[in-house]
Amino acid sequence: TERKLLDAVGGANGGNGVSNEVFRQLVNNTLERRLFYIPSFKIYRGVAGLYDYGPPGCAVKSNVLAFWRQHFVLEENMLEVDCSCVTPEVVLKASGHVEKFTDLMVKDEKTGTCFRADHLLKDFCKEKLEKDLSLTVEKVVELKHVLAMLDDLSAEELGAKIKEYGITSPETKNPLSDPYPFNLMFQTSIGPSAASTGYMRPETAQGIFVNFRDLYYYNGNKLPFAAAQIGQAFRNEISPRQGLLRVREFTLAEIEHFVDPEDKSHPKFVDVANLEFLMFPREEQISGQQAKKLCIGEAVSKGIVNNETLGYFLGRVYLFLTHLGIDKERLRFRQHLANEMAHYAADCWDAEIECSYGWIECVGIADRSAFDLRAHTEKSGVPLVAQEKFSEPREVEKLVITPVKKELGLAFKGTQKMIVEALEAMNEKEAMEMKAALETKGELEFHVCTLGKAVSIKSNMVSISKVIKKEHQRVFTPSVIEPSFGIGRIIYCLYEHSFHTRPSKAGDEQLNVFRFPPLVAPIKCTVFPLVQNPKYEEVAKKISKSLTFGGISHKIDITGNSIGKRYARTDELGVPFAITVDSDTSVTIRERDSKDQIRVNVEEVASVVKAVTDGHITWANAQSRYPSHSSVSVDEE
Amino acid sequence: TERKLLDAVGGANGGNGVSNEVFRQLVNNTLERRLFYIPSFKIYRGVAGLYDYGPPGCAVKSNVLAFWRQHFVLEENMLEVDCSCVTPEVVLKASGHVEKFTDLMVKDEKTGTCFRADHLLKDFCKEKLEKDLSLTVEKVVELKHVLAMLDDLSAEELGAKIKEYGITSPETKNPLSDPYPFNLMFQTSIGPSAASTGYMRPETAQGIFVNFRDLYYYNGNKLPFAAAQIGQAFRNEISPRQGLLRVREFTLAEIEHFVDPEDKSHPKFVDVANLEFLMFPREEQISGQQAKKLCIGEAVSKGIVNNETLGYFLGRVYLFLTHLGIDKERLRFRQHLANEMAHYAADCWDAEIECSYGWIECVGIADRSAFDLRAHTEKSGVPLVAQEKFSEPREVEKLVITPVKKELGLAFKGTQKMIVEALEAMNEKEAMEMKAALETKGELEFHVCTLGKAVSIKSNMVSISKVIKKEHQRVFTPSVIEPSFGIGRIIYCLYEHSFHTRPSKAGDEQLNVFRFPPLVAPIKCTVFPLVQNPKYEEVAKKISKSLTFGGISHKIDITGNSIGKRYARTDELGVPFAITVDSDTSVTIRERDSKDQIRVNVEEVASVVKAVTDGHITWANAQSRYPSHSSVSVDEE
Repeated sequence: TERKLLDAVGGANGGNGVSNEVFRQLVNNTLERRLFYIPSFKIYRGVAGLYDYGPPGCAVKSNVLAFWRQHFVLEENMLEVDCSCVTPEVVLKASGHVEKFTDLMVKDEKTGTCFRADHLLKDFCKEKLEKDLSLTVEKVVELKHVLAMLDDLSAEELGAKIKEYGITSPETKNPLSDPYPFNLMFQTSIGPSAASTGYMRPETAQGIFVNFRDLYYYNGNKLPFAAAQIGQAFRNEISPRQGLLRVREFTLAEIEHFVDPEDKSHPKFVDVANLEFLMFPREEQISGQQAKKLCIGEAVSKGIVNNETLGYFLGRVYLFLTHLGIDKERLRFRQHLANEMAHYAADCWDAEIECSYGWIECVGIADRSAFDLRAHTEKSGVPLVAQEKFSEPREVEKLVITPVKKELGLAFKGTQKMIVEALEAMNEKEAMEMKAALETKGELEFHVCTLGKAVSIKSNMVSISKVIKKEHQRVFTPSVIEPSFGIGRIIYCLYEHSFHTRPSKAGDEQLNVFRFPPLVAPIKCTVFPLVQNPKYEEVAKKISKSLTFGGISHKIDITGNSIGKRYARTDELGVPFAITVDSDTSVTIRERDSKDQIRVNVEEVASVVKAVTDGHITWANAQSRYPSHSSVSVDEE
Repeated sequence: TERKLLDAVGGANGGNGVSNEVFRQLVNNTLERRLFYIPSFKIYRGVAGLYDYGPPGCAVKSNVLAFWRQHFVLEENMLEVDCSCVTPEVVLKASGHVEKFTDLMVKDEKTGTCFRADHLLKDFCKEKLEKDLSLTVEKVVELKHVLAMLDDLSAEELGAKIKEYGITSPETKNPLSDPYPFNLMFQTSIGPSAASTGYMRPETAQGIFVNFRDLYYYNGNKLPFAAAQIGQAFRNEISPRQGLLRVREFTLAEIEHFVDPEDKSHPKFVDVANLEFLMFPREEQISGQQAKKLCIGEAVSKGIVNNETLGYFLGRVYLFLTHLGIDKERLRFRQHLANEMAHYAADCWDAEIECSYGWIECVGIADRSAFDLRAHTEKSGVPLVAQEKFSEPREVEKLVITPVKKELGLAFKGTQKMIVEALEAMNEKEAMEMKAALETKGELEFHVCTLGKAVSIKSNMVSISKVIKKEHQRVFTPSVIEPSFGIGRIIYCLYEHSFHTRPSKAGDEQLNVFRFPPLVAPIKCTVFPLVQNPKYEEVAKKISKSLTFGGISHKIDITGNSIGKRYARTDELGVPFAITVDSDTSVTIRERDSKDQIRVNVEEVASVVKAVTDGHITWANAQSRYPSHSSVSVDEE
């Protein structure tokens, strides 16, 4: 199969002129054959949505995470934590996951097989649009509209559409149940009593929120600060599709950056302000335009991006992804539409990477305001707040609303309590309007939500005034800006962006190569003697020892295969450098993509490879320091 | 409280003369106050057995794991994988966990509260022995015997003892149920149908075993090779005790080293053969002796340790743990007694570390023979085997047992099948004895296990012969040698072994210090200007940038606190180096334990700190290269 796929791809890289499916299959065949990933429990026919990282995949993941730690945690002095996956129900009730972390599901009424309701509707519409040539223009418009609205449909609306289109169970053609919500968390019990419900966390963020108070203290009671966490998260998908992109267990790397809601500036914003990259603001999406290159400094100053801190992270995420090897032309930052965004969010942007599946959300960068800390404060009773101490006391005008309970009790009896609460809950504007009305008219109609009606409030029932108070500090709930990275998705897109084919020397076949940057490459270099010779093998072993000491993953190849075959094998693993031992004093280093070679002393070679793979010097630097070596005759066969 | 504890400890380090409990409380207070760990979901009153790693704990863990990767994966060229935590039932049925991974539990018959049966019996015996002065000598012996046998008692025996001693529910004094097994795995459902049972993995090893075939192929179909995995594992303990040592979620680092069962030699054994460390062989335990220093080379050659590969890993584990800072006098390798060991295991040693809880198993190093691969071969139907190709075909003598079914059927009717199976299952010795008996006597009594009785076999019922066959390869199930590391336990013991107190300069108080090796320290160095001065702050920031570039975690402290206070704060985090900026050309580096200082140029300081923390040079090396600096006046206050 792979041979056929390769022929289909021909010399094209990155899927030019080849269908996305063919390109994807070629990449995935290579990934699975070289054990970048393995379907979990494969000998037991696997479990949908679960994948293992095999040796090269595991190394790529380690490298990506190590770079994430360097780029974010270390550079920004973040507080990294590592919290439990098993989570008691109360925490996820507070966060809203128990109630809202659901997908709508339908059941085959006879076999009981479950499907995601939106998937069935989507498949139906797509197939109709592709294959039914008799569709009227109106019908085409309608189906396209349904596809566009898919994420916004309620259970009732989805159910109605499924009925209207006569959609049945895909294989059996049996009727389907009405859509109903299925919670996507893996549920379990903590301890021997079944009473204590727990879930496997669906995200790592909650672990940080519940620890806010301790982390704030650890940071010297100062804002802003960021906490970070890398760890497993779990989503019990109804029927996982999209291979490595929609899985039931995955690694997240999340940052919760806590700021004063009144000051979302960022001291290092200037460092990224001049970066230009593809952005796709809300306006452009609504008006049907394309993503366009914008300068992040400008985007913030024009108010396209809500604040500096959010903008700073957009820039840092852009640098992170492109550094890993994501093609900057296939990376865009898309702003959430108003209807996509949670009601509490101030602004939200997704870093989307284009791959054979389309534009895929890989990093979400959201200003979640104070929602999460408030939710846990309320549920736990522990105030998750910050204080700003004033250098000297400030005079603050305070609104004081004092309901006169006696009068209210006489007038309203049993409903008094709800009216008192409603009065106390008035904001400044409402209260001042009431005060004015009571002063001029002596009474007014006041709508009480909890009663569902208006009551008549008279001037003797409440006193409203403003007083000047001296305050020594301000207590507030911080806002949180959350960049959340789907590590597996980033890695998958990286595979597609790094995958290339090139003709063999003889031109008779296409060879696969992953053009990983050295930073990402699972194996940094191979070491092999040019010919089988005990003396060269000794040198190779000595070099291997120095590489190990330097922490550089590598492979010795003394199989005696031809140089060309060895390169072909290591190219498929994306190994960026090859050291060929052809003397016992100096050796050559070959770079994968340019195929250029330099000659370096045996004693120095490990440190040169380390410097290039750690990113302390570039390959061009190395080339300028060491003599080049040309040996076309042995380079390929 | 902590102040009192400190006074109790006085100048003693490592718990000399202080009760273990006091020492433990002092260490744990420091750990929790400095956020090395946090009880998970603390604001919701936590969940027993779940802990989060706060910032310094998380950094220590990262450092330990990075060193594990360097020491094992990189040095030994292991194949690292990263498998799913969610595991379908079939896998854990094959491994035996569904059936046997249980603890015996009793229930308070009125409240339903659950307890570990062995814990209640243990508590009862201990309390009796400690507090009941009227015990007879016989009773004392009996209770001590029960304590010694605790792990070996069956449900019935435990239940009988609980009845005999009249043990009741600890708080309510209600009667208890009979003990029954409680499975320690967290159970869940995979996908929307409740039919698909899954568990959170109780160990990472199974992920490697089920991938054996692919990994063997990846390794060029060659043995030996090792696969490794770092990841979360889960045990739903009945009622967790022992703080950070017995938890419900933890990080394991496991190695599965696959070898030919006929050749367990190790090419690098010579590298560790001369190491000497505390070993506690089976014989010494039975005869009531102590652990003693043995040379691992000798232990293997004398057969105390079963084979070279097992011995090699004992040595490597010893190097790993002592390198991290585990005290070699409080580290021993204890061999499992015959009754502790799984029936299939060839040999098993635990690396035990002594801490305030006693000797704690932190690494298990077991030769598990072919058990796991065979179990999955049988359950999955996929042969998990290796081949040894012969360079030329070998003539092999093969035993052929051919039961004559017709005759057996006539003689035994319905039980024929079981007799055929029993005949075919004979090993060479049994078969040759039967052959001889049949040739001389014409018949013999043959015991058939599955029938539970002997039957009379006549010479016409079976033919037994030896034939010479030409074979081109040998197919066999590899043995596996498994070093399995409980990372959290190692880290906890490391905390205790690193914890010291020292008097403040004024001598009026005891200060805590974690004497972590630089490799382990969560923060490698602090940078602070000697006095508040913008010029020095600039230098400090410049140094900080170089440290970040080099990947060295550090902290700038420009609080203006006294130097002594700053040292006290950083000592509690175990920071090994402090850079004091007192000029804009050169600065001082102070080492935590010796308090020695050297003077280094601003440009060089980051690379010196990096070299020392990466272990490329020692502090003594650094001292010999750079001038020493004495400034007692500012060192402490």
